[in-house]
Amino acid sequence: MSYTPDSAVRAYIEGHRAAFLDDLVEWLRIPSVSADPGRAADVRRSADWLAAKLTETGFPTAEVWETDGAPAVYAEWPSGDEGAPTVLVYGHHDVQPAAVEDGWHTEPFEPVVKDGRLYARGAADDKGQVFFHTLGVRAHLAATGRTAPAVNLKLLIEGEEESGSAHFPDLVRAHADRLACDAVIVSDTGMWSEDTPTVCTGMRGLTDCQIDLFGPDQDIHSGSFGGAVPNPATEAARLVAALHDEDRRVAIPGFYDGVVELTDRERELFAELPFDEKQWLRTAHSHGALGESGYTTLERIWARPTAEVNGIGGGYQGPGGKTIVPSAAQLKLSFRLVAGQDGDRVQQAVRDWVTGRLPEGIRHEITFWGATRPCLTPLDHPALQSVARAMGRAFGQQVRFTREGGSGPAADLQDVLGVPVLFLGISVPSDGWHAPNEKVELDLLMKGVETAAYLWGDLAEHGRAR
Amino acid sequence: MSYTPDSAVRAYIEGHRAAFLDDLVEWLRIPSVSADPGRAADVRRSADWLAAKLTETGFPTAEVWETDGAPAVYAEWPSGDEGAPTVLVYGHHDVQPAAVEDGWHTEPFEPVVKDGRLYARGAADDKGQVFFHTLGVRAHLAATGRTAPAVNLKLLIEGEEESGSAHFPDLVRAHADRLACDAVIVSDTGMWSEDTPTVCTGMRGLTDCQIDLFGPDQDIHSGSFGGAVPNPATEAARLVAALHDEDRRVAIPGFYDGVVELTDRERELFAELPFDEKQWLRTAHSHGALGESGYTTLERIWARPTAEVNGIGGGYQGPGGKTIVPSAAQLKLSFRLVAGQDGDRVQQAVRDWVTGRLPEGIRHEITFWGATRPCLTPLDHPALQSVARAMGRAFGQQVRFTREGGSGPAADLQDVLGVPVLFLGISVPSDGWHAPNEKVELDLLMKGVETAAYLWGDLAEHGRAR
Repeated sequence: MSYTPDSAVRAYIEGHRAAFLDDLVEWLRIPSVSADPGRAADVRRSADWLAAKLTETGFPTAEVWETDGAPAVYAEWPSGDEGAPTVLVYGHHDVQPAAVEDGWHTEPFEPVVKDGRLYARGAADDKGQVFFHTLGVRAHLAATGRTAPAVNLKLLIEGEEESGSAHFPDLVRAHADRLACDAVIVSDTGMWSEDTPTVCTGMRGLTDCQIDLFGPDQDIHSGSFGGAVPNPATEAARLVAALHDEDRRVAIPGFYDGVVELTDRERELFAELPFDEKQWLRTAHSHGALGESGYTTLERIWARPTAEVNGIGGGYQGPGGKTIVPSAAQLKLSFRLVAGQDGDRVQQAVRDWVTGRLPEGIRHEITFWGATRPCLTPLDHPALQSVARAMGRAFGQQVRFTREGGSGPAADLQDVLGVPVLFLGISVPSDGWHAPNEKVELDLLMKGVETAAYLWGDLAEHGRAR
Repeated sequence: MSYTPDSAVRAYIEGHRAAFLDDLVEWLRIPSVSADPGRAADVRRSADWLAAKLTETGFPTAEVWETDGAPAVYAEWPSGDEGAPTVLVYGHHDVQPAAVEDGWHTEPFEPVVKDGRLYARGAADDKGQVFFHTLGVRAHLAATGRTAPAVNLKLLIEGEEESGSAHFPDLVRAHADRLACDAVIVSDTGMWSEDTPTVCTGMRGLTDCQIDLFGPDQDIHSGSFGGAVPNPATEAARLVAALHDEDRRVAIPGFYDGVVELTDRERELFAELPFDEKQWLRTAHSHGALGESGYTTLERIWARPTAEVNGIGGGYQGPGGKTIVPSAAQLKLSFRLVAGQDGDRVQQAVRDWVTGRLPEGIRHEITFWGATRPCLTPLDHPALQSVARAMGRAFGQQVRFTREGGSGPAADLQDVLGVPVLFLGISVPSDGWHAPNEKVELDLLMKGVETAAYLWGDLAEHGRAR
């Protein structure tokens, strides 16, 4: 691999940095809080602003796409090259709520640059990381002398990611033809740290459910009946306890069917990351690490499926005691999925497992809320190698690989469009997503611009899956 | 044993039945609802009414005893016989709330006699069963020609049993000298059925607690951290699941230490009772029977200690899902105790057991609300035999034996006074304690009078423990 930077790219970026930041600040001033109905006009203004800016950047097509919720922005810039690959960039233009009272040192929608950082709601999540693609593609053109990018470049910038992406799957399905591509680049994630640039290779999937257990038709006296009738709270707890074996492996038969195991190479690469478990525990607000035997903390979060209790309830929960056998109990369970697992199959495995475990006298109902598929791109996938190489050139060092333990709308793109999802993000954990004083490191933001500038040529040359 | 009734007793009771019922109806008209602060004056009126009636009955001493809550009534009638045993009758003069809107067919505090039943709040629980002692002792005197009972007879009729007996232990301790006795007769229970007179030989004890488990300092993201940190809801459930082994025996080490096992004779006698499990399940509002292997339903309720989950809670319990690892979880557990178990020892066993079972990163706190001791009188105890014999004479048949699965203030009397507690009750399950249309069967009520009339002579002659 070559990590040689391109002096023409760097010179172009340096020459346009001030204007780029001025534009980004203007966009960050728009409080596009999708969760706040009172900000709906601002979300629309943000979409309109972005569409206009993409037109100004040179995209021949830049449209605002309506949904039943907040509007998205779509832009398209054909390569003109015969057989050029097609790439779809995903990001979002809406932001989390923010108010000075939450602990901001400055107004969240009045961007401030201080000590090389740009502070504003959305600076990192996700306007900054969407916006680096505008200067990135211009630098790509300037350095190569092209008039159109080396790939057919498409952008889909969602408007309600921060409020649950409720209409996103429908939007993707409705426009599947225009969104068709060879790969998706998600620019809505981060990297390991300032010193350790990384590329994320996958996200976990998710399916979650509620299990209701019904025992006696009403709460009954624990003296008159206790010890002789089944107790739904006890049975709920016994289900939870049986979710994991003594090695904290999920004990539901069939749960691990098809799981793509970590390769030795991935484990080596994860192990080389400068992981400080004490620091990580502080971030987790947790006082201990615990998980599936035989795996490190990073492997557990990134590459292993889980069964987690999100909530449990039943019987008396007020002050003091109440000597009853409760009538009902409830569990909220979520299952993080990894590549190779199928949400439907996992749901069926959970249903079968519950059914077989309850005693006579306990009735149950299971409701699944849905499923988000996991996504994973193999380390040797050429498009993933292109992203890593472009990032390596920008940072002047070999990039490492991570995964993401959470689940996101990226999987909807993977599912509907049937293509690999790649991640290009330059945000770092200290950026404060969803927190007060969100910021983006300006040096890293410009590395994002530079990465984007290298990426399209590399992808056109090397990025096709064989 | 002789079950020969005494014709003089029967004649006296028959001759005074109408006046006895008129008096009871008058008392039942007083809505002495201790749980309702607006009825405090009625509770006091009920106490005053009873003290006056006991004086009229012939008790040389009849006093209203103040507590920090509702007043109790105390009465005393010395035997005059050298070496006569001393017996303390326990009951209560307060009643559960009642309103026509709850489903009563008549006004709850306007007693109505219909089809041989007296309908009113308190008819069975407990005014009727307290009041049969007044005519009982008069019949005892009339039939024997005595001017004072064959035992030193004491009555303690509490005024806040239906609202938790909060001040009862203090009251007993404060008056322990005057309450000193050889045995307590509790007339606040029932018997198996109209056709099957029974004597209760014991009650279970109780100790209950709350266990709080603390994990992360706040709810955390199940994608970013799930599967790698301990989850307090999971650990709470694992504790509950570990409470019982596969035979549904309590698995806490030391829990069964000292437990007085059922004798073969008791098991035989329980098995002879006309128990209909389907009917019992309907009463329990339960759809299945489940408990400790090797014991019948009646044995499980009456004679085996239990560990019951009264409540469990942790994490998200609202509608839909929320993908968190909860910060905390809580258990409410109650342990029913049987003779031979010690509340303090059980509490310590629970504490030790919990401490050893939680992983690093989960902190816990245990709060016990207190302990009520179990009580049990052996089948061959002479005073118990006296109660059974007196009841047998009244009913003209051999009485059988039961126990009570619940726990009650009787145990406070046993503890403070250090004497056996016996149970004499004629109420039947259909009487509707705490329910609308509470009633007492008049024929059974008069059998209660008759039993009381036989009991004092029998106890004086045979009732002392050897």
